[in-house]
Amino acid sequence: MIPSPTPPGLRGYRMPAEWAPQSQVWMLWPERPDNWRLGAKPAQQAFVEVARAISRFTPVTLGVSAQQYRHARTCFGMDANVRVVELSSNDAWMRDVGPTFVRHGESGGLLGIDWQFNAWGGLHSGLYFPWDRDDEVADKIVSLTGTPGQRADFVLEGGAIHVDGEGTVLTTEECLLHPNRNPQLSKADIERRLCDWLGAEKVLWIPEGIFEDETDGHIDNMACFIRPGEIALAWTDDESDPQYARSQAALAALQGQTDACGRLLTVHKLPLPGPLYMTAEEAAGVDPDSSGMSRAAGDRLAGSYINFLISNGGIIMPAFDDPMDTVACACVQEWFPEHEVVMVPGREILLGGGNIHCITQQQP
Amino acid sequence: MIPSPTPPGLRGYRMPAEWAPQSQVWMLWPERPDNWRLGAKPAQQAFVEVARAISRFTPVTLGVSAQQYRHARTCFGMDANVRVVELSSNDAWMRDVGPTFVRHGESGGLLGIDWQFNAWGGLHSGLYFPWDRDDEVADKIVSLTGTPGQRADFVLEGGAIHVDGEGTVLTTEECLLHPNRNPQLSKADIERRLCDWLGAEKVLWIPEGIFEDETDGHIDNMACFIRPGEIALAWTDDESDPQYARSQAALAALQGQTDACGRLLTVHKLPLPGPLYMTAEEAAGVDPDSSGMSRAAGDRLAGSYINFLISNGGIIMPAFDDPMDTVACACVQEWFPEHEVVMVPGREILLGGGNIHCITQQQP
Repeated sequence: MIPSPTPPGLRGYRMPAEWAPQSQVWMLWPERPDNWRLGAKPAQQAFVEVARAISRFTPVTLGVSAQQYRHARTCFGMDANVRVVELSSNDAWMRDVGPTFVRHGESGGLLGIDWQFNAWGGLHSGLYFPWDRDDEVADKIVSLTGTPGQRADFVLEGGAIHVDGEGTVLTTEECLLHPNRNPQLSKADIERRLCDWLGAEKVLWIPEGIFEDETDGHIDNMACFIRPGEIALAWTDDESDPQYARSQAALAALQGQTDACGRLLTVHKLPLPGPLYMTAEEAAGVDPDSSGMSRAAGDRLAGSYINFLISNGGIIMPAFDDPMDTVACACVQEWFPEHEVVMVPGREILLGGGNIHCITQQQP
Repeated sequence: MIPSPTPPGLRGYRMPAEWAPQSQVWMLWPERPDNWRLGAKPAQQAFVEVARAISRFTPVTLGVSAQQYRHARTCFGMDANVRVVELSSNDAWMRDVGPTFVRHGESGGLLGIDWQFNAWGGLHSGLYFPWDRDDEVADKIVSLTGTPGQRADFVLEGGAIHVDGEGTVLTTEECLLHPNRNPQLSKADIERRLCDWLGAEKVLWIPEGIFEDETDGHIDNMACFIRPGEIALAWTDDESDPQYARSQAALAALQGQTDACGRLLTVHKLPLPGPLYMTAEEAAGVDPDSSGMSRAAGDRLAGSYINFLISNGGIIMPAFDDPMDTVACACVQEWFPEHEVVMVPGREILLGGGNIHCITQQQP
């Protein structure tokens, strides 16, 4: 993948919204025992359920190491809509390590953006080392699909951005302005790059993501577009919860704002589950390591229903065996009357540090 | 891949001839330093030249380990007709470990046969251990291509068979009747299986392959169909060469025989290079190991021009920097007046134990 001097957004490409038609969804297989409890077996089962749910609407390709290839292939049996391929990685967060596909406005051709990846913070506050395989995933996917790719000149993860497909990018200051990503770039530099690479004209900033989110507050766990001009925001009314101020600040940042097309934004509140905490039994199943990931009994989990995937006619959303599951499901179903909302147990994915949106990457 | 009780040949599938149209050619990347000298670097360069030559006629997909992915991808640069994918293996003999594709006579659909593979002889006389990754290659390719696959109930390598696409299989007794492959099966059992799996009606046997061929005499180094009813056979007129009796015996076995359609066979002689031997310098570049592969100075090399690949409008054929190169090229060009014969240096591939046909597998 040869760097091109001109970012794709300046050459007629734009990132489509997640509700635009998708040809396939990419996933990776969870394996590392210092993140996923019990040798990653419960997480693998959860990933299988997510892949199966998505595959009702969109073909899925799942990348797996050589070591686990046979097992993953067996898990999916003759499921013709889930394709298993050898594709190694350091962990399983396809949203953040996969390519962000942009589409050319005239030719309709796709291009895969290969963001620089530093494991959510690099050597000083990143979550693990090394991340060399993760950083090769995007290139492997563009090679596999025969799509042109372009390596970005800055660090970004796919989970740090949402777009409306009509020129607006949504993100958080907590993540994108964190000195562990692109310390050499000002806020204005980053806005310029987001627009130039994604084919956008306006960046909407909210201050922070979900409390204790180890990604430094990825937007895709906090808020998302549900259609142009309308945003869903993770919400709690519990003033004693540290999340309260974060959600309030996000609402204040968005209210009264317009998108790239000049629409006044509408913000919909999506209740949060929990609060949820890691149990002693869950923590005990994870290999202790010296990395940046904390997996201790009593850790607050960054659980959020916002972490759903829109994929063609379906919305795949995490359930937490929580009283709010049905409330959140009803909200999303009301906002997406033409979609089928499918809830899949998400706690095992959450224990590893993310959820359904984090483990998937759509290809238009 | 779930074994099906009925072999594909009994369900309307047949293996097309190599001169039938091909959608792509599969290759693997040579890496193991106990087979390929100097860390496999000269062999990798030879494989790059083979892939580039094929890609003038047919798209190539090359599978490479995670460790060598970046290097292989860089070797091909922006060559749009060579796709590099992560696909690990124990060595690089795609002909023998890849799927044999068969096509359904009515629907035209493809199926990939996943032969049992035991590294050319298993624990007692095979060339290396383990061979687990090699034995997964065929399944990975059918999964990647979305083609149905079927696991065979016996050991076979793709290089041990040739077909005319019209019901005839060509093979050697030396390999298929060797007790290190399918000792439980009689010659009649093997004939039945070849016909049932490949969609054939008749098996033509020659006694032996090329002298000192460590595959136990694969047909694809000794003889091949050039069109229905016509066979090219590796030949020497040197009575002092141990190869002489082998070529004579093959000619005797084929003369007067008919193919599945009743055609009387014509046999064309293709001169052999050399004889060729491994030099001390070449042998010194290979890591000594305790496997079944001999890589010693003075070893007779099983070099043969027969080991070419027919791929759409091209024929990719090994050259050995030998006086016979131009003679062999002229023979093949005469037999294939509509094809372009491209010679590529094949000695580095030969040093590893095979040649161009051995490192490629066509997909119709």
